[in-house]
Formats: sequence, C-alpha cells, structure tokens
Amino acid sequence: MTADKLQPVIAVDFGGTKTIVAAVLPDSKIVSRRFYLTRAEEGAREVIKRLVSAVSDSIVQVKSKGMAPAGIGIGVAGVLDITRGTVTTSPNLPGWRNVPIKEIVAARSGLNTFLINDASAAALGEYCFGAGQGRSNMLYITVSTGIGGGIIINGELYSGASGCAGEWGHMTLEPNGPQCHCGNFGCLEALAAGWAITREAVTRMEKGESSSIAELVDGRADSITAEVVANAARKGDRLACEIVAKAANYLGIGLANLVNIFNPELIVIGGGLSKMGNMLLKPAKQVIKERAFRLPARTVRIVRARLGSNAGIIGVAAYVFNYRPGRGVRA
Amino acid sequence: MTADKLQPVIAVDFGGTKTIVAAVLPDSKIVSRRFYLTRAEEGAREVIKRLVSAVSDSIVQVKSKGMAPAGIGIGVAGVLDITRGTVTTSPNLPGWRNVPIKEIVAARSGLNTFLINDASAAALGEYCFGAGQGRSNMLYITVSTGIGGGIIINGELYSGASGCAGEWGHMTLEPNGPQCHCGNFGCLEALAAGWAITREAVTRMEKGESSSIAELVDGRADSITAEVVANAARKGDRLACEIVAKAANYLGIGLANLVNIFNPELIVIGGGLSKMGNMLLKPAKQVIKERAFRLPARTVRIVRARLGSNAGIIGVAAYVFNYRPGRGVRA
Repeated sequence: MTADKLQPVIAVDFGGTKTIVAAVLPDSKIVSRRFYLTRAEEGAREVIKRLVSAVSDSIVQVKSKGMAPAGIGIGVAGVLDITRGTVTTSPNLPGWRNVPIKEIVAARSGLNTFLINDASAAALGEYCFGAGQGRSNMLYITVSTGIGGGIIINGELYSGASGCAGEWGHMTLEPNGPQCHCGNFGCLEALAAGWAITREAVTRMEKGESSSIAELVDGRADSITAEVVANAARKGDRLACEIVAKAANYLGIGLANLVNIFNPELIVIGGGLSKMGNMLLKPAKQVIKERAFRLPARTVRIVRARLGSNAGIIGVAAYVFNYRPGRGVRA
Repeated sequence: MTADKLQPVIAVDFGGTKTIVAAVLPDSKIVSRRFYLTRAEEGAREVIKRLVSAVSDSIVQVKSKGMAPAGIGIGVAGVLDITRGTVTTSPNLPGWRNVPIKEIVAARSGLNTFLINDASAAALGEYCFGAGQGRSNMLYITVSTGIGGGIIINGELYSGASGCAGEWGHMTLEPNGPQCHCGNFGCLEALAAGWAITREAVTRMEKGESSSIAELVDGRADSITAEVVANAARKGDRLACEIVAKAANYLGIGLANLVNIFNPELIVIGGGLSKMGNMLLKPAKQVIKERAFRLPARTVRIVRARLGSNAGIIGVAAYVFNYRPGRGVRA
C-alpha cells in the first residue's frame, strides 16, 4: 500500500469495552474520530453489525471531505490468526471463536482490510509517533481492563508466527493463582489488570473488609472499577492501598521478566491504569531492580505512553500505510 | 569479517562446568576440539589464565595445519555487556563482576575477539546448522546446570539493547519460590535446572525421604546430580519421579509463557537435561496446551536440539563469520 498524503486509513480500535473508528493520515493526523461502547455482551453478530455500520459512516464522512480511504485497519483486543484474518479467541470478547472479521469488513466496504492486535497497534503508534520514537528495540504494555503488549525489534513490529505475539498479559506468574478470563491460572492479567483489581476489591469487601470504596460507589458493588479503587488509594484507604500495591508488585514481576527476556531499550506503558502514575509505576520499578539482572535493569527506560487513547488508531493506520506483502511492517 | 573457506574461527564455549575450545570452519566443520573442566571455584584470574592458554594452543594447532585463524569467538555463560566486552555477572561463575574478558583474550592473541552469550551462540548454531534451519522465528532454550536462551527473529540473532536478551532462566514463576543463584526468588532456573533438581533431591533426602538415589551414589550426597535423579526416575523411584515431574511442570510453565510472548514457529530444546527426552518434554508440552492460548500453542513446534554439545562452538563460529559492525549478525 502506497502512502498518499491525502488518503486516510479508516482505523478501528476495537476493544472489549469501547470501539474507536477514525480516519487517520500518514502523518498521524486524525481527520475524523468517533467512539462508541462495544457492548461485547450482545455477541459477535451484533457487535460486527455495529462495527460495519460505523466503518461505513466513516467512509462516507471521508469521501464528503474529498478524500478516498486508502484501506481499513482493525486493531482487535484478541488473539488473531493474521493469515486467516480471524479473531481466534479473546479473553475480553466472550464467545468469540474464529470470527472472520477481516473478510466481513472487506466484503461490506470493498476496501483492502487489515487486522492487527490492538496492543501491537498501540506499540507501533507509540514507536512511530509517540514515546518510542527512535528506539528500535521497544516493548509496549497496556494495562487497562486487560493487559496486552506489542514488540518492536530492530525497528519492525514483531508479531510472531501467526500474528499473536506479545501476550504477556497471559504470562503465568502464580501457577496456583486466581483464574484468568483466558482459562489459565495466575496470569499477569488476572493479578494486575483492571478487572483483577475490581474483582479483588469486590471479593474482599464482600468478605467484610471495610473500605471507603463503599462510600465512593454509594454501596453499589457493581460500580466498583479499578479507577474507583485508585481514587480510594490516593486518599489513603487501607484496603485500596493494599490492592494497588499488590497489583503493582505483580506488574513489576511481569516487567522484570520482560527485562530479562528482551533486554529492551525502552518499555512504554499505556492503558487506563497507567494514569495511576507513580502509585503503580514506582513500586513496579523497584521490583525490576530487585528481580532482574542489573545490566538490563539499568539499560531499560520505562516511560508512560504519549498518545493516550489514540495510540491504537494511529498505530493501526501506521500498520496499513507501512504494510508490505510478505514482508510485514517496517515503520 | 569475511568468510574464507580455509580460515577457521577459534570458538570457545565457556560454561560454569566445562569449557570447549575448537577451531570451526564456515561450513560448521570442526577442525580441532578439546575440552576441559572450567573449575570456576578457582576464581576469574585462574580461569582466564587457563582459557588464554587453551586458546593459544588451539591457534598453534590451527597454524600447524597451514591455516590462519579468522578470529576468536567466546560464548560465555553469563550476562554480557557486549558493547564493553565484559562479563557483568554470571549466576554460574561465582565472583565474576565486570570481567573484561574480550580485551584480555584479544590482547594475548592479537586476534579480533568477539563475545556472545553461550545460549545465544547455541541458538545461532541450531538455527544455521541444526534443528532450526529455515525457521526464521525460533527460540532456543538450554536446560542444563542452568537455564539459558537465545532468540532468532526474522532470521537474525536478537540479543537486546546491551547483548543479554534471552535470560528466561531468570523469569520469575513463583514469586515466593526458592532462591536462585542470581539472587532472585522463584526463577525458572531455580525450579527446573540441573542444580535445582539436585538441590531438591539432596534437601528431601536429608529430611529423611527414602529413595533409591542413595544407592546410586553409594550414600554420598555430593555425588547426586540431575542425571542421577533422572536415572532413578527412569527406574520408577517415587521421590525421583516427583522431582522430575515438578521440574517438567515448571519447564512447561516457562515454555507456555514464551509461547504466549513470542508466538514462535519453533522452540529448540538443548542442554544436558533435554536428554531426559519425553520424561521431561511430554509433561512440559501438556502444560503448554493447558496454559497457553490455543493458536500459538498449536503453531509452535517443540523439538530437541541436534548439534549436541557442539551447538555452542558452531554458533560462536557462525557469529564471528557473520558479524557485521553496527549491524549485528544476519545468519
């Protein structure tokens, strides 16, 4: 696909909670952007119908501005089979099994369509236009509802033999730990992601531990989110502090493992929970110091992502603009 | 360095237990080879003296055959700072701290000298001439006294920002687990490597558990090795079987993590313990099925290394022959 300054990519960041559909130019400029709730609980058929319709709207909008879409890119929060264009499974899209999303969107739109894992897309976005610029060996970790990742090696997105590399959210850190949405036990995600923090708070409060979290949500347990827990921790609530400290410790163990495995120049941390800032990152960095080898621990820089919630769509667009058949993506 | 058919590389595989010094041609043919015990307990000074002398002998031998050494490559079981040519630390070379081994050997020999991590070298060897031929996204894991690894991505050795990538032996799998030689707790190596198996057997027998291992070593606890434990397990000894099963389970967890992180085409398993074969690998593969995502677990092939104890020296030679300044190694 050749980059044309005037042709945007229709870039979709399709997550378990919300979906962003945007038109993005090669220089990362966002021409149009809307977002809506994914409502994954309604099932794949309804979700895809909504997606196809949002993509159509975006195409119409782009054309009304005198531009022609260069293609469609979809960043999906799931384990993709890139060669088949399917979502094989997704811990945060319940019921999705081998959904041929690429084919469906391509058929409805008549445009070249590409799939990429959402965290890989965000990695590429941060590498091309964000916190990772100029760092050719970089890892990206998103700590959000779930935990995902993307790998840049020698200036290229590395996505593995079938397109699903970077799933360090599902690295086992406690073999007998709590069960994860993926079915495994003791995954990093089940110990440190947003949903794990929420679960821990709900469980412990149900067991009778007192916390100011109860007031923050007016006693409604289903309103407890990781953000609420973080707010309570910021105000010194004991239970919330313990839960955040535990998550930060596991995040640190996961990062220490990545430091020993990849010896990366840079780790970029994105996703909603990264907004907790030092409350989460300071103890995590301390764990890296304690657990990883000194040389790679000293070498790596750990920084927060810069593109915020646009990392995904910007990365998806970069992926489509830079994609070369049989060669993958050199950004 | 240009490959010349008649010029061998002096290739050293320098491990915590033994050292191999060989002369290897570009086609991986071994012209000469000797090995000796490293005797790491005598300290860095003595160990290096012995190494320099063995390298000199090898050079003399090569010259006596009418050949001129193309350079020296040293594969070291340690965390290397490639840019400085130092061994920063090594869990299995006690007391080594920032030893400038590259400079010493280069000065004594007058030859271009290269350092590479021993497991990275073995990965490169298996990729160029062994079980990994034609698999451009491949991981290598050596399960031996310690556990190390090497990464081939897009047909290139990936060694990280400072040259020490692939240290998955020191990935934490049990945050409160037994202490590792590296100082950390619950590393894969401390749960599944040769020394961990030995330690577990000794500890449990000291606590009074009975085992036929005692007879195999004539009651001498210091003669217990992982090999002895494996032999006892093969004969159905209950304690030995339990210890091997536990190590295999942790090896499987480590591999499942790598499968989710790298989505590799191939994982090549080398090192002395890989000779246990299915006793170790079958349960480990089962764990991958249970813990990793289905797609990458189905994609990956897990095979035993083919070059045996020569993987290191063959890989070291390949590294030196293929090294391009500023570009690294494209094999």
